[in-house]
Amino acid sequence: MAFTLWFTGISGSGKSTLSQRLCDAIAARGLTVERLDGDIVRKEYAGLLGYEEKDRRINIRCLGFVSSTLNRHGIVSIVSAIAPYRVSRAQNREKIENYIEVFCDCPFEVAAARDAKLLYARARRGEIANFTGLTSPYECPECPDIVVHTDTESVDESVRAVLEHLERCRYLAPK
Amino acid sequence: MAFTLWFTGISGSGKSTLSQRLCDAIAARGLTVERLDGDIVRKEYAGLLGYEEKDRRINIRCLGFVSSTLNRHGIVSIVSAIAPYRVSRAQNREKIENYIEVFCDCPFEVAAARDAKLLYARARRGEIANFTGLTSPYECPECPDIVVHTDTESVDESVRAVLEHLERCRYLAPK
Repeated sequence: MAFTLWFTGISGSGKSTLSQRLCDAIAARGLTVERLDGDIVRKEYAGLLGYEEKDRRINIRCLGFVSSTLNRHGIVSIVSAIAPYRVSRAQNREKIENYIEVFCDCPFEVAAARDAKLLYARARRGEIANFTGLTSPYECPECPDIVVHTDTESVDESVRAVLEHLERCRYLAPK
Repeated sequence: MAFTLWFTGISGSGKSTLSQRLCDAIAARGLTVERLDGDIVRKEYAGLLGYEEKDRRINIRCLGFVSSTLNRHGIVSIVSAIAPYRVSRAQNREKIENYIEVFCDCPFEVAAARDAKLLYARARRGEIANFTGLTSPYECPECPDIVVHTDTESVDESVRAVLEHLERCRYLAPK
């Protein structure tokens, strides 16, 4: 039974790290997996999409559509994308049959201090418009399937929490 | 070797009819096929996309991205979408490894007379803005892989022409 595992959270909250780890772990169990990163997919649009609400929602809808299409063909989709709007995540849940939302919960200050991509520094200098958490909202998930606290948990702990959930819900066979 | 077969042409030029027939014919040869219709995929966006150039190009880019992702997993993608802009079709060719463009060439008057979806009638009454061929351009393909003349050929003839091309280019084994 294919499914979509969606990592949502602000920039620097650990989405990409965790999605790559989960991708490896799930593929190691013999499932076919596609990893979709919001930033990378956005590049496919070659400048057609900006960061205003409408364009962000379009990007999320495309990721959701790709995911449900892949799932129908037995391919697991693992998405890392901020998906800051509740309406977008609600559409995911409505349109993707097996949708599992992982909220990467990390305080803004911790994520900003990590700033691996130096985005927060650029945003503070005003070089990035509509930056989530600064000049654009992040509407916290109200009903995520899994919450990982990436400020206090280790990556291994978060990975284990997700895998345990997937096993409990029978998306994965117990190891 | 999976591939993307893309039917382009104005409304009423036969894209949907031919894409469904090709979908059946290719699936009957044992390949896994996904059929993507531009109008249906557009509904996934739940009103976020209109018919201005930018929004049309976004829709086409999403279809192209879904197609190349499916192809990587061995799934043939058959797309029916007007794709009126040369730049969009050039991006398809650049980004989709095995991209086969079928131009459904049909004179405007013939397509308008068919008007199976009654779109031309509505467009003439001014009820549809940015209607391709009337108030929005269709930039004819300059280098399609296949041209089918749906005003003079039968559906069977067009289907056969596409299948023969796919066999000749080794996308399909000869029957």
